[in-house]
Amino acid sequence: MASPHERLRELGLSLPEPPAAVAAYIPTRTVPLGGGRALVYVAGQVSSKGGQRLVGRCPDQVSVEQAQEAAHAAALNVLSQLESAAGLENIEQITQLVGLVNCTPDFGDQPRVMNAASDLIVQVLGDAGRHTRAALGANALPFSVTVEITAVALVRTR
Amino acid sequence: MASPHERLRELGLSLPEPPAAVAAYIPTRTVPLGGGRALVYVAGQVSSKGGQRLVGRCPDQVSVEQAQEAAHAAALNVLSQLESAAGLENIEQITQLVGLVNCTPDFGDQPRVMNAASDLIVQVLGDAGRHTRAALGANALPFSVTVEITAVALVRTR
Amino acid sequence: MASPHERLRELGLSLPEPPAAVAAYIPTRTVPLGGGRALVYVAGQVSSKGGQRLVGRCPDQVSVEQAQEAAHAAALNVLSQLESAAGLENIEQITQLVGLVNCTPDFGDQPRVMNAASDLIVQVLGDAGRHTRAALGANALPFSVTVEITAVALVRTR
Repeated sequence: MASPHERLRELGLSLPEPPAAVAAYIPTRTVPLGGGRALVYVAGQVSSKGGQRLVGRCPDQVSVEQAQEAAHAAALNVLSQLESAAGLENIEQITQLVGLVNCTPDFGDQPRVMNAASDLIVQVLGDAGRHTRAALGANALPFSVTVEITAVALVRTR
Repeated sequence: MASPHERLRELGLSLPEPPAAVAAYIPTRTVPLGGGRALVYVAGQVSSKGGQRLVGRCPDQVSVEQAQEAAHAAALNVLSQLESAAGLENIEQITQLVGLVNCTPDFGDQPRVMNAASDLIVQVLGDAGRHTRAALGANALPFSVTVEITAVALVRTR
Repeated sequence: MASPHERLRELGLSLPEPPAAVAAYIPTRTVPLGGGRALVYVAGQVSSKGGQRLVGRCPDQVSVEQAQEAAHAAALNVLSQLESAAGLENIEQITQLVGLVNCTPDFGDQPRVMNAASDLIVQVLGDAGRHTRAALGANALPFSVTVEITAVALVRTR
């Protein structure tokens, strides 16, 4: 079975630099659970690509397809943070993904948008990437980004 | 003391089939903590009843009372997922409930709506059902549902 | 190095009484992890000060500066709950902070608002206070408060 890094290559993707936290907070926190396992909490990762934020409200300012690109980009940032904190190959499970979609009040397709994030994570991590998820709407997000995702993962630490 | 299942019967309620995840994600993830305990993360459960989604924004499209019915239905779906993942009788504590209420910008009664979820869970699980909670507003939720709830529970695994 | 309580004094701050939960839920839940550690989940703490809720939407009803005061007040309530549940001096790490800012759809400065919460927590707890964070917008919050914050912390229990 291909490793997460091999799968990323097969998908034609490379991990971005893990985005720096822009304030007094930090990108990840690791909670040791004993038995060689830990929970890694990932700070909210916004949709950005090549250092550019992907912004705009769905669907009146950006299309569902563009919002899916934003969700994909935010998920890639989540993976990058997990690689930096623990190594993708040490991920035992993606425990939880919470995805916020910047949208109008009449929009109900947050799950379709977030599928672009969920699908990427499962493509890269296989069964370990299968996760619980909440797809939510938000009337506003930092810097007007289209998508923000937080994550919790269970990892092996030895 | 009555078991959770006896309490459900006394309340005239039966657990729905645990709603299937509608995408690449899964309804629950279990994090083993050692010592015969685990944390169970439950994916966002939307308000649905008898296979029908309970939709509409509070209070201009649905009343507070209807939103409470939606919160009750979403909480029943949470219980159904926990039954499926671990068994209600193995729940040691409901650790966290986050409840999103689809609402207008001038609405501030999210706690009253979410009480219908909190009360149900305490009625069914007793002290084990007492939980931390965040009641939040959202301008939009998947499929225009009225309420979405995520949960984390601590369970006994042996 | 100063203790958290000494730092609070140096900042001219005192912890408020931990706000009571206003419904069937409880302010904190503790998940024992073994090895003398536990995770403490803190229920959503709203912006209140001296028993008065700090309300209003940012930036059309309250300014960014006022929203920062609200974030500071909500963070002080989080600290108060953690003091009550575990003692500030036993906090090993603030694992996660999720901050919701009641705001208009065109507002993107949630991180600047939430910095007032993050900065306070790091000032009081030092390195242990450094946390992962999600700063989010909400179209509505309970009782029209300006800020609501949930938290998870890792604490020593012996």
